[in-house]
Amino acid sequence: MSRWEPDARGRLERAALELYSERGFEQTTVAEIAARAGLTERTFFRHFADKREVLFGGAGQLQDLLVSTLASTPDSVAPIDAVAAAFEAASVLLEERRAYSGMRQATIAANLDLLERELVKLATLSAALAGTLRERGVAEPAASLTAEAGVSIFKIAFGRWVSETNQRTLGQLIRESLDELKAVTAGR
Amino acid sequence: MSRWEPDARGRLERAALELYSERGFEQTTVAEIAARAGLTERTFFRHFADKREVLFGGAGQLQDLLVSTLASTPDSVAPIDAVAAAFEAASVLLEERRAYSGMRQATIAANLDLLERELVKLATLSAALAGTLRERGVAEPAASLTAEAGVSIFKIAFGRWVSETNQRTLGQLIRESLDELKAVTAGR
Repeated sequence: MSRWEPDARGRLERAALELYSERGFEQTTVAEIAARAGLTERTFFRHFADKREVLFGGAGQLQDLLVSTLASTPDSVAPIDAVAAAFEAASVLLEERRAYSGMRQATIAANLDLLERELVKLATLSAALAGTLRERGVAEPAASLTAEAGVSIFKIAFGRWVSETNQRTLGQLIRESLDELKAVTAGR
Repeated sequence: MSRWEPDARGRLERAALELYSERGFEQTTVAEIAARAGLTERTFFRHFADKREVLFGGAGQLQDLLVSTLASTPDSVAPIDAVAAAFEAASVLLEERRAYSGMRQATIAANLDLLERELVKLATLSAALAGTLRERGVAEPAASLTAEAGVSIFKIAFGRWVSETNQRTLGQLIRESLDELKAVTAGR
């Protein structure tokens, strides 16, 4: 247990998500997560503040990546396409974590506290993207509407990605959702 | 205090919102709300389960109205226009409550617990609208994207309505937001 282990964080994440899926988030203790990962509680707390942090630790990183990608997109790209492209670029980080993402999604959907936190994170992300669009010269309410549309596209593509049995990538599903939103708002 | 009073519920709402705005939601007690309204705590609890209920009591009614309006819109109307029209119809209920709505918005924005609850209500509303669209024959992911777009349009129009000094109605701002979203997704 005390020997050096590569990727302790990854093992803790995997163990936590398995346990949240098997017995529920509330019913899982940090001691059980550490034991399943073959590590100590002390090691857990070196990586995560608490067991919620396992689910939300990556949100800040995702937001930073989206904002910086959006900020560096050429001005010639239409705002809605720039936002969708930023999500598509960020989706590369997630592609290898489909099983993890599915367990995370199911855990959050089953717990109101977690769902509330997830929705606040998405609202915060939407506000950050709207701010970045305003810095690119997009006026309100277009900036906020575009950011909200981008988050909706991502949310719906993400839900399909973790639940569908076909093998499309998250990036493909984001592009499809963008095209679908364009069709929908064109009244088709 | 004990004599019959017309519109006790309205007076309690007004008193509560004033106090939430003046001193914050957490710092306000039911006793203070009742006293400001010139009513008893017992009367308060005949109308509201607790002080959060003052803010969220109307959400179910709003959702029912939106769903029934959407369900009865002719199939010839494009889904995005039908959803926006349902919000526009529901906005009539709110037009006379602009000052109340502004205080409610500020109270919720200042308190994370309230913001979480508001976001869950909006997500629940979006899911209900998507379900209604599916019943009208709209396939997924178009149904969910349309419902999400409708909620975004409403949220952004509502935010402008309570904060702007001009005299446009909430209904006008909903139509403007719809047009703006159509322009945005068309890449303009």
